[in-house]
Order: sequence, then structure tokens, then C-alpha cells
Amino acid sequence: MSSKNLTSNDFEAQCLGENVHPSPMATECFCDSYERLLYHSSLNEIQQRIANNSEPLSFEVAGPRRNIFFDPAKIACGIVTCGGLCPGTNDVIRAIVMSLYHHYGVQNIYGFRYGYEGLVASYGHKPLKLTTELVSRIGESGGTILGSSRGHQDPAEMVSMLSELNIGILFTIGGDGTLRGAAKIAEEIARQGKSISVIGIPKTIDNDISYLQTTFGFETAVSEARRSTYAAHTEALGARNGVGLVKLMGRDSGFIAAYTAMADCQVNYCLIPEAPFTVAGLLADLETRIRQRGHAVIVVAEGAGQELMTASDQVDASGNKKLADIGVFLKEKIMAHFAEIGLEMTLKYIDPSYTIRSQPANPHDTTFCLSLGQNAAHAGMAGRTNMVVGFWNHQFVHVPIKLATSSRKKIDPVGRLWSSVISSTGQPAKL
Amino acid sequence: MSSKNLTSNDFEAQCLGENVHPSPMATECFCDSYERLLYHSSLNEIQQRIANNSEPLSFEVAGPRRNIFFDPAKIACGIVTCGGLCPGTNDVIRAIVMSLYHHYGVQNIYGFRYGYEGLVASYGHKPLKLTTELVSRIGESGGTILGSSRGHQDPAEMVSMLSELNIGILFTIGGDGTLRGAAKIAEEIARQGKSISVIGIPKTIDNDISYLQTTFGFETAVSEARRSTYAAHTEALGARNGVGLVKLMGRDSGFIAAYTAMADCQVNYCLIPEAPFTVAGLLADLETRIRQRGHAVIVVAEGAGQELMTASDQVDASGNKKLADIGVFLKEKIMAHFAEIGLEMTLKYIDPSYTIRSQPANPHDTTFCLSLGQNAAHAGMAGRTNMVVGFWNHQFVHVPIKLATSSRKKIDPVGRLWSSVISSTGQPAKL
Amino acid sequence: MSSKNLTSNDFEAQCLGENVHPSPMATECFCDSYERLLYHSSLNEIQQRIANNSEPLSFEVAGPRRNIFFDPAKIACGIVTCGGLCPGTNDVIRAIVMSLYHHYGVQNIYGFRYGYEGLVASYGHKPLKLTTELVSRIGESGGTILGSSRGHQDPAEMVSMLSELNIGILFTIGGDGTLRGAAKIAEEIARQGKSISVIGIPKTIDNDISYLQTTFGFETAVSEARRSTYAAHTEALGARNGVGLVKLMGRDSGFIAAYTAMADCQVNYCLIPEAPFTVAGLLADLETRIRQRGHAVIVVAEGAGQELMTASDQVDASGNKKLADIGVFLKEKIMAHFAEIGLEMTLKYIDPSYTIRSQPANPHDTTFCLSLGQNAAHAGMAGRTNMVVGFWNHQFVHVPIKLATSSRKKIDPVGRLWSSVISSTGQPAKL
Amino acid sequence: MSSKNLTSNDFEAQCLGENVHPSPMATECFCDSYERLLYHSSLNEIQQRIANNSEPLSFEVAGPRRNIFFDPAKIACGIVTCGGLCPGTNDVIRAIVMSLYHHYGVQNIYGFRYGYEGLVASYGHKPLKLTTELVSRIGESGGTILGSSRGHQDPAEMVSMLSELNIGILFTIGGDGTLRGAAKIAEEIARQGKSISVIGIPKTIDNDISYLQTTFGFETAVSEARRSTYAAHTEALGARNGVGLVKLMGRDSGFIAAYTAMADCQVNYCLIPEAPFTVAGLLADLETRIRQRGHAVIVVAEGAGQELMTASDQVDASGNKKLADIGVFLKEKIMAHFAEIGLEMTLKYIDPSYTIRSQPANPHDTTFCLSLGQNAAHAGMAGRTNMVVGFWNHQFVHVPIKLATSSRKKIDPVGRLWSSVISSTGQPAKL
Repeated sequence: MSSKNLTSNDFEAQCLGENVHPSPMATECFCDSYERLLYHSSLNEIQQRIANNSEPLSFEVAGPRRNIFFDPAKIACGIVTCGGLCPGTNDVIRAIVMSLYHHYGVQNIYGFRYGYEGLVASYGHKPLKLTTELVSRIGESGGTILGSSRGHQDPAEMVSMLSELNIGILFTIGGDGTLRGAAKIAEEIARQGKSISVIGIPKTIDNDISYLQTTFGFETAVSEARRSTYAAHTEALGARNGVGLVKLMGRDSGFIAAYTAMADCQVNYCLIPEAPFTVAGLLADLETRIRQRGHAVIVVAEGAGQELMTASDQVDASGNKKLADIGVFLKEKIMAHFAEIGLEMTLKYIDPSYTIRSQPANPHDTTFCLSLGQNAAHAGMAGRTNMVVGFWNHQFVHVPIKLATSSRKKIDPVGRLWSSVISSTGQPAKL
Repeated sequence: MSSKNLTSNDFEAQCLGENVHPSPMATECFCDSYERLLYHSSLNEIQQRIANNSEPLSFEVAGPRRNIFFDPAKIACGIVTCGGLCPGTNDVIRAIVMSLYHHYGVQNIYGFRYGYEGLVASYGHKPLKLTTELVSRIGESGGTILGSSRGHQDPAEMVSMLSELNIGILFTIGGDGTLRGAAKIAEEIARQGKSISVIGIPKTIDNDISYLQTTFGFETAVSEARRSTYAAHTEALGARNGVGLVKLMGRDSGFIAAYTAMADCQVNYCLIPEAPFTVAGLLADLETRIRQRGHAVIVVAEGAGQELMTASDQVDASGNKKLADIGVFLKEKIMAHFAEIGLEMTLKYIDPSYTIRSQPANPHDTTFCLSLGQNAAHAGMAGRTNMVVGFWNHQFVHVPIKLATSSRKKIDPVGRLWSSVISSTGQPAKL
Repeated sequence: MSSKNLTSNDFEAQCLGENVHPSPMATECFCDSYERLLYHSSLNEIQQRIANNSEPLSFEVAGPRRNIFFDPAKIACGIVTCGGLCPGTNDVIRAIVMSLYHHYGVQNIYGFRYGYEGLVASYGHKPLKLTTELVSRIGESGGTILGSSRGHQDPAEMVSMLSELNIGILFTIGGDGTLRGAAKIAEEIARQGKSISVIGIPKTIDNDISYLQTTFGFETAVSEARRSTYAAHTEALGARNGVGLVKLMGRDSGFIAAYTAMADCQVNYCLIPEAPFTVAGLLADLETRIRQRGHAVIVVAEGAGQELMTASDQVDASGNKKLADIGVFLKEKIMAHFAEIGLEMTLKYIDPSYTIRSQPANPHDTTFCLSLGQNAAHAGMAGRTNMVVGFWNHQFVHVPIKLATSSRKKIDPVGRLWSSVISSTGQPAKL
Repeated sequence: MSSKNLTSNDFEAQCLGENVHPSPMATECFCDSYERLLYHSSLNEIQQRIANNSEPLSFEVAGPRRNIFFDPAKIACGIVTCGGLCPGTNDVIRAIVMSLYHHYGVQNIYGFRYGYEGLVASYGHKPLKLTTELVSRIGESGGTILGSSRGHQDPAEMVSMLSELNIGILFTIGGDGTLRGAAKIAEEIARQGKSISVIGIPKTIDNDISYLQTTFGFETAVSEARRSTYAAHTEALGARNGVGLVKLMGRDSGFIAAYTAMADCQVNYCLIPEAPFTVAGLLADLETRIRQRGHAVIVVAEGAGQELMTASDQVDASGNKKLADIGVFLKEKIMAHFAEIGLEMTLKYIDPSYTIRSQPANPHDTTFCLSLGQNAAHAGMAGRTNMVVGFWNHQFVHVPIKLATSSRKKIDPVGRLWSSVISSTGQPAKL
């Protein structure tokens, strides 16, 4: 996550205009303009910046403003959810609706159905009217009450529907692709000279968005993933020379696999995209372990070891490259190896992805989603646009979409997190 | 489950000899010899028997006897677990050990490792000494602390190890194949004129053993399976024209699929081995539902629709015919159909088997396993052999292995259970 | 549960009249009139009856009839829930509504609010219109969507509201007191010569209704109760001479305490109303155990040991005698005893009742509630009245309210269940 | 949490001496001495410091050092757990043992039993030898395998036992009182000129230790607490004018209550020690809500509203002032008020503390405990002493015990967290 060429400017969210309306929100706890959060938290880094006479990089702190851009009585708002399911999505929807209604008095809130499709008239998905009653208990269910889809739509068509419904703020809940789509909508809005704010709430169960230390749903995902490694370990123990193999989410970043490995001390191998390994290396170490201990548990992120398999050129509707199936690949390689050396063994392969991502949020994520949604509402009402609500060093901040999508957050294979993982699993530093 | 040609004789467990030792058990609650449980519970059936002057069929009731066959001070006992994992196995092991030790004072109890392999000297698996301390909290973990394996071993070799260790009672925890194996051990013992009791505790997560209304682990399995249908439903709702497809256990009998469908009212189709269906029938109804409601959840037992696929001649180590994969088959057929008719849809396929079967027992199953284990100990000490502990009309009974394995328990496709299932799912009676 | 003076007559549910309408239900699986379930399941009992030339006692089997009493197009139906919360209540409501609508086509179904109050006009609770959409997912929540209350209301007033709303069948979900109230409504209906069926679904988390082997919510309650004994055990282990004391439901019958004690093998004492004990006896044994083992877990049913405390004459709105608090009483006695003998110890007291009873049903209870509700609908449509849907030897049956409320189901303190409990806890047979 | 008079010096952990031994740990990921974490994260604060020419306050970053103080082959280590139960305690024990053994090769690790008592010879508690096998799966259970106690012991006696056992590092897991005790041990060690390190791992389920953004077990506690507010809400909905009242932990700081209120959007009132309220204010608002909405859920921290009740002078063994019972107090006040105004209502009171604190850690806390334990081992081996392992802005740091115990962390009643809580509950800012 290099910040070498970043300037203070890259950290500034766009504004639609001056905040001329006093906020109707009943609080004494407004954010002051001088509140900014340091991007760096290392003393050394700060001292170097000072020595170089460069101002420390910092984010604008999120929260309610004393004066706001929109007159809440005059606008409608819209919410759209895109991409794969993620625990907490309904909590975010609920928090946005509750904040818009109770804090600001916005009367018309629309939920667009099935992702960006819902913003294109020709699909014929009628927007859902979101009331506080309707959303009151939606957090108890997984998934998204709005439905979702992958893929982009024409920005002009979407802006046209926003204008027609008198939308002042569009909240987009989605991942990397969705956010890039949101940026295009914001650009089209700017091109047309309209005053519509576009606020993103980053949704990535993989936790791989830069400049965001955590994304919602991640904790819930790790909790649920541990159920699978528990099963894998139980299966491995129950058989002579038993191997449990669990494939977890993680296209480019192995955070779920890494945290699950640390959360379940019975995991013996954790394989992630950021730390390359060879099949021979894995098989040799696994064979040794099986001969010595009689069982093993392996966790592999879906994006790990892609270079070991035949590449595919296919992409899905979101434009993500279709991954080759590392789980099935490893399963076959391992079974072939033990068959070859004549060591009887049993391998059980578990792929729990859909069960993980369809869970309702755990209490941690519920609370986190509450704050995300509220801060998104505040940011929108304050006329910020083309930004996402981020979380950095225990504070909610405004992050420009461009910055958030400029690079993917990954595990540093020579850093402390990965070092903790391999010390927890006991696997060799280099497989 | 026809009982047409059964006689009272078929219901009698074998005995090793006379019960000459007074039981050391501290209870006033011994079983009396006249306690027998009716096999039939229908008034009509009993009246017909009476009219025909034939005695009603009945089981011997399980429980502690005032006098027992073995002198507990003079024997060791052994426990072996075979076949696939099943919730509650450790609870049964625990209950047997606790009862043998606390009720009867048996000092030496061995756990044979990795199924019947552990009874064959040449495998070199040293038996585990089972103490009350060792087993005290094993029920909190899924799986089996003894390990398991599939497949038969030579009865003579196994009896030879039993004799060597001075085993008086061998407890075998396993399914159909395991029980047939146990019967062979009992026959070999009889052939050699030895006094070793063989008591089976039926373990079949599929709940498919005849003359047993419930088997342990089944309730836990259904509970866990409902987590998967919840996920499938959430995924289906979250996509336009979403289909969630869940494959559950059930080689020959669809009990898990059927009860899961009733336990989750969001399941729209339940497919089981006992109720044949056609691919065309399913696709036609599914298409209609998707067009009308926009989502659907399908549960399929692994043994369903085998006749629709190319047969395989392979068998696994237990001698079970290898099943073709109905889950993957249906997934492909459904996706191909919708592609053909040009109706965009999303299918999520979930196969949770290993996660289900590796769960620890829920409280219902823990209690059930406690009674199973205790009654197994009582039956063995009373010199019964070649039998399993069964559960019939809320009572524990003695069931000869031959009777228990004479036919498989299945869902009657024109009976009330299946009728309840299809009224819960709303699927057509005939797909 | 003596059946000495019972005659076949006591087992017959009342009928409103002849079943003249063909059932619109799409099934081939109707119940035939000759289907009756034996009350006794012991061979001995049946043989004695035959020897005495008395017909075996039997229940009418529940299920859909080919011909029904009501014309579904012409009636409305009503549902009322009374008494304390119980897991599964919403599932029963759902199942009744679904069956009335999908099986029979009943269009108007009312939910009366807050128990029998909702049937008395002067309270002003407007009945809730129950649609299949409204009830679709209510089983995911605990409690009752209709609300509840305790206490009786005037039968004449209630019948007057039933008539006004053209109710053909009233479903009452409640315990002993509620069922007696339902019987009074049925009698008032009969007195007025009206054709309104009153069908009870027994709701008692204590599982204490006679002639019903299980009641809904009981399994869920035991599951949740085990969480408290787990906590009590953990607390007890975490302190020098730690004692964990858990008070569970069970006014007159200790089933929840007994099954929880068997489901958690760490429970050392189980105290129930049916098995009297002395404070001195408990303290002496507890002291011995604490000196030897350093920790102990005690489970006590709320109705246990009432004779040890000062009696109260108060009753609650349901007419139940107010119990003295055995939990607090024991806590104080135990702490005083150890203070007196100068043995330092720590006692943690847990009273989880509200948390237990407000849970949603587990999958077992969901399925059970589905069948209860469907069979209640079938019984009502077939013109049965003044009866409850019971469950006996794995079958659903019709039980007259008078029979069901004639005596309370209790644990036999010299029977096999209690014997299993004390063998699991290891407590003395007589404390 | 004012830092006005703090100097850089207050942030420095003590050192036993020079690090002369090369670390045997197999990693490339050692901490460098220049790695320091800023205490302030606000740009403004840093700029002011720079303007004032004062160096920013910063913590030493935790982690393994390339050179260490102790020769691992020559020392034993000890672990002690004190105070009330807290989820994750066993995980911390496990992580320390694993790190000492696998990273450094320490052979003798002792677990002192029942808190500081275990360090005083006269109590006669034999230390438990902690092996990697023994601790392998202890994280699956709640509580502490070492047992715990409250209260102080004589530092000289404890140091005497440490010397006798050749302890090089003592790890103390406990709260405020325990840490002050640890500081006294460290001082006694210094007085005697010994080289024994004392490293604290802050255990406070209330999350109320300053300079630590999170403490282990807190997330698990909030998760479990939400089960109680769910029950309270279900009970409240199930009765006419139902009120659910839940008392949660929080002697001086209301973090658990506050986060639970945000995690369960059905909570209507959250009462904490930091935000005073009047009984009259609460009753008036509650009455209005009950008349309008018919139900309410109240969460109260145990330390809230102490000034409303008669003060007690008693203290517990840890020296904590005994709190008056605000839960029972409010229950009675509320019931009296509604009785007085003649409004029938039902109140259910839930006190789940023991059930909450005896849970095993959730995956988040397991992972967090892993890092805490590892960093404690690293700090001890590097000769740091009289410090705790803290967590600040997503990094593990060294915090002197004196700093950590200098003041309690509390919720700012005019800050953003509390503002989020009252906006989530909808309660008036001032009750």
C-alpha cells in the first residue's frame, strides 16, 4: 500500500457546493472542519514528513455537519446494492434509511432492485419504497432485501432515472467494480451539472479495499469460516491419515483465509494469493506431517496458486477474471501424490462460500454497519460526492473513490500479519 | 417395512447363557422379564392378530437386569466405531464407558482405533485405554475419538484379539455394513464356543435402519442442514431469478432431506430416492415458479434420481455402490435449460455434508446417546448378543441384528410423512 | 398417569355433526376411520385387557379426512395464543394459516390479540387479519406475533365475538388453564347450539400435559437451558470451591431440569418437584463433593422443594399458585452453610427462564409445530371439537380436552427416567 | 482520557537490561527499535505539538526483537489469571505457552492456580505444568483452566516463589486491580535486584482500561449480550405493554451496554454510569413510549445510576466497591409507577452476566488473544517489565502499567459514541 506519490489532494473528497442549510439533526455533536485523521500512525513517518517540510497526509473525519448542502424536505434518496452477498448489507440499508428519516426528515427513499439494473428503466424493476417500518428488522436476515446483480450499466441512463425520481443522494453498496461504476455516475452527474451526491459504502467480504482497515461483513465471514475448519479438523482426526481441505473466499487478497487460520489453531497450512507456493513444496511438507501426526488441515484462498494452473480468459459479469479452481486442483494433486507413494489416506474437501456470505451480520458487524450507514447519510447531506465511507485507525473517514480503488489491499508476505499466520499454523515460511 | 412373514422368534435377541451374578448396580429400577413392547401400535392390527389367534409381535425392553451374565470384575470390554462421522458418536462412547465403570465396576475398557482395522493385530493400531477421566468431556467435540474406517476384516482375526484382551463385551458403533460385520463376529464367537457378547449401536445419519424409529445424530444433522437451506434461500432471494440447490445426505432413504424441507418452510422442492421424478418434470415446474416468483430453493438427497444418470459399477470400501452426483447433474441440467430458453438466472449449489456430520451432538442427541450407551452396557452385561439397541415408540428395546438389517427403512411415497413434505414445499405430488 | 378407571369413551373427541362436504385437499393420503392408535404399548397390558375381555384403549388418529364438516368457503377461522412465551408458537400459527388457506381455501383468518382478552369486545383489541404472506417467515422469530395474556374471560362474551365474525373454528394455543378455558367456550357453544369447533394446541414448555408424550418448544428449551449449565460449570471450575446453581422452569413437573441434566454431563445435582429432598441432605452431600472435587453444578426446577419454604397464598392471573423462589432460597442456604463451616467458596446463581422461552424454535420443534398446526386444521375442518392435538408413540392423535387436563404429567420418582438422571448426575438416590 | 500532563517518559516501558542473546525465533520479521506508534491520530493535535516544539507522544511497538534479554534455555516462565471470568482467557494462556515453547524453546512453563493465591506457598496450590499438548484445545472452553481468585497477596511471598521456581517472566492476566498487584510485584523484584520480568495482559470485559482501544473478550461479551436483548424484546412484544429490562456488566464504564444497544436496534433505552439520569425522567419517557408503542426494551449497565440508590460501604475481595443493584431498583420503580398510574403492564427482568462472561471466545477474540499472548511473550523475552500489551490504532504496543492504570477509560457523554447510541435507541439526550 505504497503512498509514495500521494499528495494531500488525493485524500480530499469532492463537494457539490456550499453548506447553506442548518442541519435539522438533534445533536450537539457535530463534526468540526478542523477534524482530520492522520493517514500515517508511525512516529518515524511523521518525523520524516516534518523534516521534509511536507504536511502529513490525512483524511477528513466523517460525521454530521452543523450546516448541510441539501434541503432534506426537497430531495429523495436512493440506495442500490451490487455484487455478491455480504453479511451486514441489510444493516447498512437500514442505517441509511433510519438516519435519513430520523436525523434529517427525508421522506422519500427508494431501493433500486437488482444492482445497477434497477437504475435502468428498460429493465423494468420498480424501485421499492423504503420506510422505517419496512427496514426495521431486516438486519435479522442475511442477503440484501434489494437483490443484487453484477455488471455495469450506462451512466447516462442511470442519471436520467435519478433525475426523474428527484434523487439528491445515491448510496451505492458494493465492491471495487461497483465503486468504479459509482465514480462514472458521479462523473456523468458532474458533466450534466447536476447536484446529485454519490456516496459509496465499500462492500467486500475479502476486505481488500485500500485505505480501509476493515470492511463490513468480514468478521462475520471469519466466524462462519471457522465452522468449516472445525469440520475439516474433525474429519481429519476421524480417519487414519485424514486431510481436511477448506477453500475460502479471497480472489486477490487472503485476509479471510489468514484470519481464519489464526482463529482456529488446528489449521496447519494456509495458502493465499500473496504468498506463492509450489505443489511439490506443499506435498513434501504435507507428507512429512501426515507420516508424523496422522492428520492435517489446509485452508486455501480461492485466488491462491492461480499460476500453478492453466489460465482461463473468461471473465464474469463484473469483469472479474474467472479463477481456476484451486480447491479441486489441490484435492486431486494431494490424492494423486499419496496414491503414488502408496500411503493410504482420506481427504475431505469443503467449499463453504455461499453459506458464509449469506449469514446475517454478527453484533460486531451490525454495529459497524450502523455507523457506516449513518456516516454515509451525513456525508451525502453535507454534499460530499464521489467518495466512500472508510474506517481508519478506529475512526470513520471520507475517502475519495479514486483513492479507494487505486490499488488493492493485500497481505504483505514479509510483514507481521503473515508472520503471525505461519507461526500459528506452524507451516514453513516458504512452501 | 412389511412384517408379513415375521414371527415372534425374529424379535428375540440371542443370549450367551444364564444370568447368575447379582447386578452390582445401585438402583431399584431393574427391568422385569415380562416387560415387552408391542411392535404394532395400531388398534386394528392388534385386533386382527387376536382374531387370527396369533400373538402380537413385541420387543424385549432394554434396561438393567437384576441378575447379569458376566462377573464385571473378570472381564474387559471393547468399543469400536466404523463408517462415516455422525454427531453423537463420542457421547455414545462416553455413556458406555461411564455405565460399565460406574454401574458395574468394569476396570478395563479398550477403544479400538480406526474401525475394524483396530481389531486386527497386523494393522498395529494399539487400543486406547478408556478411562472415565479421558471420556469425561469428549461429547463436546464432533467426530470420534477412536477414529474410524470403512470395510470388513477377517472375523477370526478379530475374535483372536478379543480373546487375547479378555474382552467380554464388544460394542460396535456403526451402520448397516458394520452391523453385518458385527453379526459375523458374533457367529465366529459362537462357532468357537466363546462367551463374548457383541452389542451394536446403530449409527446412521440417514436414519435408515428398520425397526428403529430414530437413530442418533439425525436431529443434529437436520438442524445443521437447515443452515444450508437458509443460505440457499438467502442467495436465491438476492439474485434475479435465483435458484438455491442443496444436496443432503441420504443414499437410499430421504429422511434428512424430507425433515429439512419441513424444518425450513422456504424449501420449494424436495427430491428423495423413494419418490422418482423426471428431469423434464422438475424443469417445467421450476421454470413456472421462477417466472412467477423469481426464486426457488431445491433440496436433493444424494441418492435421489440415480436412475436418471449413467450407472457406475464402483463400490466404496464399505461395499456401498458409488453414487453418481445428482447435485452436479441437476445443477447442469437446470442451467442448461434456462440458457436454452433464454431466461437469465443464477444458481448457487451447496453441498454441506462434511460440515453436517462433523458437528457435536445437540442436547436432544446427547441425551439420546446417553440412554443408548447405558442400555447397550446393560444388554451386554446381561449376556445378550448379536443385537442392537433400538428405539421404538419412545422406549429402548433389544433388536436382533438380523432383524435390524433385514431391510432398509424408507419413506413411503404414498404415506403421511411424504404427504406432509409436499404440502410444506408446495411441490406437485408427481414431478 | 393412572388409566385404571378410564373407558374407551374418555378417549373420544366430540363431533359437531356429519361430514357432508368432500375435502378440497389435494392428497391421496386421507385418514380412514378405522385408524386408531393404542394407548398402551406394553404387551402385558394388552394381554391383560384381552384376558378381561375389555377392548384396548385407543386414540383417534389425526389427519385429513376425505369428507369434512365445514364448507371452507363459508367460514372464517380464529387463532388465539395464551399464557407464557414458548418456542414454536409462531410456527404453529403459521402452520394453521397455511393449512387452512392452501389445503382448504379458507379466506378469512383472524388472529385475536393478547390471549382471551382479544375475544372480548370491551378490551378493544382489533383482531389481526392473518394472510399467508404475513405469516410466511414469522417462525424465524421467538414469542408470538399475536401477543398473549393470562387469565380467563367470560365464555358468553367470547362466543358472541366468534359468532359476529362468523368463526367456524377457534384454535387456542395454550397450557392447562387455557385449555380449561377452551373447554368452557366449547360448552357455551354447545349450550347455544352453535356449530363452532374449538381445537386446542397444547403449549407448555414444562411438557407436563398428560396423554401427550411431547409438547412443542420443549426440545428448544432444553437446548437453550444447556447453555446455562455450561456457564454454571465454567464458573464453578474457574473458582476455588465453585458452585454453579441454575434455576429452570418446571412448576409441577421437572422435565426440563431432568433432560437438561442428562444433556449436560457436568451437572452434579438435579432437583425436581417430584423427588423431595431435604436441605440438610443436599448440603451434606454438596459439602463432601466440594471437599473432594472442588466444584459442583446444581440444577433446580422452580417448583422443587416448595414444602421447604414458607407457603404463599397468592395466585397469578392464570390461577397458578405463586411459587416461593427455590433458587434464591438454596443460594442463601448453601452460602450460609459454607460460611458456618468456614469453607471458603463461590456460588454463581443463574436464572435463564426468559431467555429460554423467548427463543425461536429449533428445527425439531419447527417440524413438530408444522404437523401440530396442520392436524389442528384437519381436526377442525372435520368437525371435531373440545379436543387437543396430541402426540403419542410417534403419531398425532385427537385427545379430548377433558382427558388431557384430567391430571398433570409428572416424572415418576421411582421410574426409569429419573433413574437415568441420577445415574447421569451421580447424585444419591435420596438427598 | 486527558493527556495534558503526560510526557514521552510516561509512555516508556521499563527494561531489565541489555538484550545480549540473539533470538532463536525463526522469522525475518523482527521489530526495529525505531518503530513507534503515535498516541494521537488527529492532524490538529500533531500540528499543535510541532508548533510547540514538543515531540509527539508515542508507544513502543510490540513484536519479536532480534536480540533478547533472557537465555530461553535457562529460565522457567509462569502464568497467573485473576479476577472474574472473561472470554478468551484460555486463548491467551495458550498463545503464551505456544510462543514461549515454539518461538523460544522455553521448556518449563507453570500455571499458578486460583490467582495470586497460587503464588503464595501457604495456600498449597501446586502449580500446573503447562505443555503445548495440555493447552492445545483449551480455547474451545470458556473460563480459565488455571482458576482465578480476587484480592491481593504479599509481594515478597510471591517473589519468593518466583525465585524458587526460577521464573524469568511472570505473565499476569487480569484487570485494574490485578495490574496494580503486578506493578507491586515488579517493584519488589526491583527492590531485590532480581531479573524477573512482569508482563500484564489486560483482562477487563468492561473494556475500561485507558490507553487500550480494545480488550479481549469484549466483542464476545457484546455478542452474547445481544441474545439477552433479543429475549427482552421478544418478551416485551409478547405482552400488552411489555417492558424488557436487561442489566449488563459495566461498573464504571458503559461500553458493553452501549455497544449492545447499537448491535440490537430494538433497544429503546441505554443507561450507563457516564450519563446520569433521573428516575422521574426515565419513567416519564417510558410511560409515553408505552402508551404510544405498547412495548419497550431497556439496557442498564450495572454501575449506572448508583447515585440514585442508598450507598453501601462494602467492598469485594478485589477492593471494588459493592454496587447497589440498579436492575432490581429500576424494576421496582417502574412497576410501582405503572401500578400507581393504573396502567397494566408486564416487566421481564434479565440478568445474564455469568452466561456472558463464561462463553468461549468468538473467532475475533481468539485471533486477538493469539496476538496478545505472542506479543506478551516477545515483550518478556526482550526484558521489558512492569508493562502491559496494549492495542492502539490497529497495532500492538507496550504500555507501562502505571500509564494503563492511571485513569479509567469511559464513554464521553458528549462525544460521538454516546451520540450514536442515543440516535440508535431514540432515547432523549437527557433523561
